[in-house]
Amino acid sequence: MNHSVPPLKLGVCGLGTVASGLIELITQNPARISERAGRPLSITRIASRTPRPARMPAHAEFSTDLAALIDDPEVDVVVELIGGVEPAHSLIERALELGKPVVTANKEVLARHGDALFLRASARGVPIGFEASVGGGIPIIKAVRESLGGDEISRIVGIVNGTTNFILSRMDEDGASFEDALAEAKALGYAEAVPDYDIEGVDAAHKVAILASLAWGIPFDVGEVHMQGIAGIDRDDLAFARRLGYVVRHLGLAQKAETHIETCVFPALVPKSNLLGSVCGVTNAVEVTSRALGKSLFIGAGAGALPTANSVLSDVLDIANGRSVKRLPSHGRERVADSQSCATYYLRAQADDKTGVLARLTDLLAGQGIGIDALLQPEIDAALGSPSAASIVLITHATEESRMRQAVSRIQAIPEIRGPVSLIRVFEGE
Amino acid sequence: MNHSVPPLKLGVCGLGTVASGLIELITQNPARISERAGRPLSITRIASRTPRPARMPAHAEFSTDLAALIDDPEVDVVVELIGGVEPAHSLIERALELGKPVVTANKEVLARHGDALFLRASARGVPIGFEASVGGGIPIIKAVRESLGGDEISRIVGIVNGTTNFILSRMDEDGASFEDALAEAKALGYAEAVPDYDIEGVDAAHKVAILASLAWGIPFDVGEVHMQGIAGIDRDDLAFARRLGYVVRHLGLAQKAETHIETCVFPALVPKSNLLGSVCGVTNAVEVTSRALGKSLFIGAGAGALPTANSVLSDVLDIANGRSVKRLPSHGRERVADSQSCATYYLRAQADDKTGVLARLTDLLAGQGIGIDALLQPEIDAALGSPSAASIVLITHATEESRMRQAVSRIQAIPEIRGPVSLIRVFEGE
Repeated sequence: MNHSVPPLKLGVCGLGTVASGLIELITQNPARISERAGRPLSITRIASRTPRPARMPAHAEFSTDLAALIDDPEVDVVVELIGGVEPAHSLIERALELGKPVVTANKEVLARHGDALFLRASARGVPIGFEASVGGGIPIIKAVRESLGGDEISRIVGIVNGTTNFILSRMDEDGASFEDALAEAKALGYAEAVPDYDIEGVDAAHKVAILASLAWGIPFDVGEVHMQGIAGIDRDDLAFARRLGYVVRHLGLAQKAETHIETCVFPALVPKSNLLGSVCGVTNAVEVTSRALGKSLFIGAGAGALPTANSVLSDVLDIANGRSVKRLPSHGRERVADSQSCATYYLRAQADDKTGVLARLTDLLAGQGIGIDALLQPEIDAALGSPSAASIVLITHATEESRMRQAVSRIQAIPEIRGPVSLIRVFEGE
Repeated sequence: MNHSVPPLKLGVCGLGTVASGLIELITQNPARISERAGRPLSITRIASRTPRPARMPAHAEFSTDLAALIDDPEVDVVVELIGGVEPAHSLIERALELGKPVVTANKEVLARHGDALFLRASARGVPIGFEASVGGGIPIIKAVRESLGGDEISRIVGIVNGTTNFILSRMDEDGASFEDALAEAKALGYAEAVPDYDIEGVDAAHKVAILASLAWGIPFDVGEVHMQGIAGIDRDDLAFARRLGYVVRHLGLAQKAETHIETCVFPALVPKSNLLGSVCGVTNAVEVTSRALGKSLFIGAGAGALPTANSVLSDVLDIANGRSVKRLPSHGRERVADSQSCATYYLRAQADDKTGVLARLTDLLAGQGIGIDALLQPEIDAALGSPSAASIVLITHATEESRMRQAVSRIQAIPEIRGPVSLIRVFEGE
């Protein structure tokens, strides 16, 4: 450690689990952390709207005045761990205005206001660290921006929401219902403050927007991410998927098409043999396809106090060592467009009179020009027991999503069809 | 791109596959690369003892005088891609002496002379980039040094040699013999100049020495890495392993014990359900276990011109942007010691008279205090056909390696035992 370098003083906004994790990581072994930072590193000030915590770092001042923390000349770097759009967004803006580097775990603020914030940061010549915003403890931001900085990325796909992956894993491995698995996720503290954000895919969409912006220099825009959650997934679908050699995973996808960038989040049938299909529980996994490297896969803790805090800390160490990325690449040529690419689909319908309905259903698909790649055999069907005894399960040939959805609404209109028809995209991972 | 920043001029030593890959990456899209570098980036000089290549970057000067390239004041950064210890080592030393940053893919030079080189680099305040030295295109050096810089690593284990993994995959999937799989690896250009380095584990040992040094600040010392190659692995072992629920992988392992660091490379039975067991062909995979993150897994192209060149390029981009790590952490408290930790073992012996020998063998193990966890049933044995008809295959309880090896030499001395006894460590991955 170079003692001639002045210490770096952190101000931490927010006192949730990630902030507690950060305090733990920094105070556990201060000598080691300062050695890695190349200078003494300390948390001098903490602010939160909630009461003072039991455990506070020595010499840190606590207050409920968030704005005062930003303005405090004793604070060199602002660590924003409040979450949500406001006041987090305004606090980050203010910190940048004052020329202070910012570290944030806030994917929502970045996905909504990233462009303006990075413009401001760039104008003041200060970095924004946001490793913790995607993939929890996985260093995917650094990998995409630095390690793959000279490569040409064609696709990023992965499991970027631990809660939905936990729910799908529980439904698959233990046959839990969606409701029971969600309740368990909440009990274990995996479901975030607003669980709808996870279940409906909003959280994953924020992360996809951030990754797409980094990979291709397009504007941060979560509004362009085609979003589909996991609330419609039934445990019967997981059982049928398994018999067809697949597992169901909630994927975030950003890929470069010829003229545009496609971004979407959706539940998908993933082959069991694919590594993404092996990722269970709250673990996250991101696969990057690029020209030089081919496929690279990053797997690790997608959530939790210490993993996320470690990502925050790695940004702080980069700032302390003066090695942060200060610019965002700005190509700006590509446009985001809604996905119209073809995919194969898994379709499940329940019918009163299976034999008759099957013929009508396949006729209807044929009439729409949708081919059938696989039809689940009745003996497998029967093995699943009576609740699914009248299920028709098939996998289509590659079809446009709009055409597929049109066909589903016609199938839904067949009088003998009971309940909603399941439609899940198949992601072969090729 | 900031045009007020002077261009960064590279001198490339060596003209093998990685150098060709680097030239391709830099010249393919110079505008993009310069934008990522934050300044114009060019290869101004190339030197190699072999003839001038067909494809040379425009404006680059070629010569066979490696030393002159280092000394050329027009060369800002030296990229060493020769391989082998000398003259690579002397060239790197000379470049550092002149205060020039160095980027190298040379694991052997680092594993043997890393400490002296980093001391010299530190004294001159210049970085040595070596992302390409471990894991090919996987950004494992950056992950360990930067992303996990504030974390406490307890273990690093992985598949760090693509050649041996390719050979084991071919033997496993296609029943190829070791010799045929090696010949195929050579034909495909996967086996390195000296294939013994791969097969005997020397290459993997270099990489383990580098990772251990980064993780715990211990001296680079490949001599301390306990080394075991794959030449003794028979395809029968792979077939039996598969029936027991395992695959065979060649692993590099560095882990922190209570009083010391253990480093070793060895073939191991890995459970099929473990992600390391799913990694096939020349792909590399490194799993890092740390206090904050738990397990993180990095999977990607372990070799090849473009993946390795991308790692070289990422170091160059870090240098261009002034964000290289300039210091190595120096804890220096831990010592490397030979592994005396317990492990379970797979043992296979071929016998003329199986029934009689089995009793003697198990008696012998019991006499050494080695328990048996699983014994392969004869019906499974028979299913493999006549060549293995008299095989005795078992998995032991956790046992010290020295005791296990002692037992094996006694088993080997039983007159009815035919050929060598196979002993392979089991790595459960917990």
